[in-house]
Amino acid sequence: MSRPTIYDVAVAAGVSKSLVSLVLRGSPRVSAASRQAVEAAIRELGYRPNRAASALASDCTHAVGLLIDDYANPWFIDLARGLHEALGPAGYRLSVADVATASPAEDPVDGLLSSRVDGIVVAMDVPAGLFGPAVPPLVIAGTRAQGAPGADSVANDDRLGARLAVEHLLDLGHRSIGHLPAGGGAGSARADSALAVLAAAGTSPVLGPISPAGAEAEGYRAALVMLQQHPDLTAVFAANDTMALGALGAARELGYDVPGRLSIIGYDNSALAGSRLVDLTTIDDMSADVGREAGRLLISRMAGSVAAPSHSTLTPALVVRGTTAPSAA
Amino acid sequence: MSRPTIYDVAVAAGVSKSLVSLVLRGSPRVSAASRQAVEAAIRELGYRPNRAASALASDCTHAVGLLIDDYANPWFIDLARGLHEALGPAGYRLSVADVATASPAEDPVDGLLSSRVDGIVVAMDVPAGLFGPAVPPLVIAGTRAQGAPGADSVANDDRLGARLAVEHLLDLGHRSIGHLPAGGGAGSARADSALAVLAAAGTSPVLGPISPAGAEAEGYRAALVMLQQHPDLTAVFAANDTMALGALGAARELGYDVPGRLSIIGYDNSALAGSRLVDLTTIDDMSADVGREAGRLLISRMAGSVAAPSHSTLTPALVVRGTTAPSAA
Repeated sequence: MSRPTIYDVAVAAGVSKSLVSLVLRGSPRVSAASRQAVEAAIRELGYRPNRAASALASDCTHAVGLLIDDYANPWFIDLARGLHEALGPAGYRLSVADVATASPAEDPVDGLLSSRVDGIVVAMDVPAGLFGPAVPPLVIAGTRAQGAPGADSVANDDRLGARLAVEHLLDLGHRSIGHLPAGGGAGSARADSALAVLAAAGTSPVLGPISPAGAEAEGYRAALVMLQQHPDLTAVFAANDTMALGALGAARELGYDVPGRLSIIGYDNSALAGSRLVDLTTIDDMSADVGREAGRLLISRMAGSVAAPSHSTLTPALVVRGTTAPSAA
Repeated sequence: MSRPTIYDVAVAAGVSKSLVSLVLRGSPRVSAASRQAVEAAIRELGYRPNRAASALASDCTHAVGLLIDDYANPWFIDLARGLHEALGPAGYRLSVADVATASPAEDPVDGLLSSRVDGIVVAMDVPAGLFGPAVPPLVIAGTRAQGAPGADSVANDDRLGARLAVEHLLDLGHRSIGHLPAGGGAGSARADSALAVLAAAGTSPVLGPISPAGAEAEGYRAALVMLQQHPDLTAVFAANDTMALGALGAARELGYDVPGRLSIIGYDNSALAGSRLVDLTTIDDMSADVGREAGRLLISRMAGSVAAPSHSTLTPALVVRGTTAPSAA
């Protein structure tokens, strides 16, 4: 058995060799059906485009950097998976850098700029100095505080997602609802939308202290403060799943039954939310789809596309699990 | 205010400029006290060695690759933090690649070998083909199934850690103890040691089905099977914290009070274990220390050290939290 070629992939997928090339280059001109057929053939045959990619290399490293702000918030895992799905068949590998674990002597932006990557995906609020002629093509993933002049962006609709979260609580009869906000662009969008929807429904929502990093320990402390100051609350919407894990810990410490006494909903539908112990009702932020779309956009930019910046918004979805129930109040 | 220089760091730390250089190069000849003084001065002054590093660059990319097998198992976060602490001041940046999220078209080993990294840290069972003249210096982090000819390694003592875990359960009066094993070198070492200690203590330990990837869903299913087949069990030692999270989910599904009816202990002391909801008794695998030591070894290899391979073993520690209690049986 010799190593499968691009021709074998074309035959197996029932398409032309040039269509396979287009898929490998992440062209937006390929239909979803053709792309899926080619991707299935690649998987089935175990095709690896690395040799071809190496031959093309010259100045290219075929490396893409993903910049995130915290490994401990697992929302980025599905994003990375989606990015790999788009970038892998095109011969790109992904390397991830995290701001939270960086040492004081490091500057992650310096690191990215001095690294020889062909493209960058920014999955955190965009650091200053990340734009300019020396910067490789980049795509912003997620709703971010600052616009990114000239850069493509892909995000789930955080305002709609927050609406889905609080409407779920309202539908369950809750009227005393608190929100635990996170810092950053996505956090602001979720908080603004949640408060607006709750106010329009005639309730007086409680806004907890902001958690700048959106971390578990912050969510725990913020929830503890908010629940102690407002013992009438029957439901909490946390800005992300990691903070919701902290809020569940606070509820446990206060002896509150979840969901009998207190409903808690998160945001992201991370692996954590789906674990049997946490079993968290949440909003699916479509991270894998965001990653695939960001990967495709980046591939076309790295191939020299000069099209106008593209801004995609994907539709989030409510995922009901075990931490929300009808209000007992 | 001009940008701080290596001389400013030396003055602030009260040491010579050449000692600062030694620290930046990760030399093992520097005492812990001097290293801490220099690192504190670097932080205080905001010194960034990047320009010097760039000037030195030539063929070097000053990039180090970290290869892991699953972002969803957060044990690697402290490892990455320790690596950054060693590598950052020396002008190296870290990029992480994960096997679990890679697409079918990718080969992570190919990716590492074709990437322009100056060094590699392998924090998973060592993939075939990762040795040879074309491979940059590499350090193995953690106990791995296969030896790595010529490579340095740093790991916590998994056999001792497993002993600490089961001795904690024995000390609490448990005699009906089950173990949930994981695949790979660390999993084998933990299982072998746990079973030997339990047998020597005169108990008849129950060995659950193996979880090849050591993931949460695997731990959940394995625990459910084991607890249903052996309703007499009063304590479970899971091979890692992620599997322990799964076991906690299984206990919840069976209506078992933890720790009243069933004690559960994990391994790794990951961020998950320290969260208020999970509050898991576990073994601290000293990941940050493993990372710092692996980083120092790698720096000396990248600087051309031809010393004999070094194999360090760090001492793990028991961390008692809320999921273990005296046996009620």
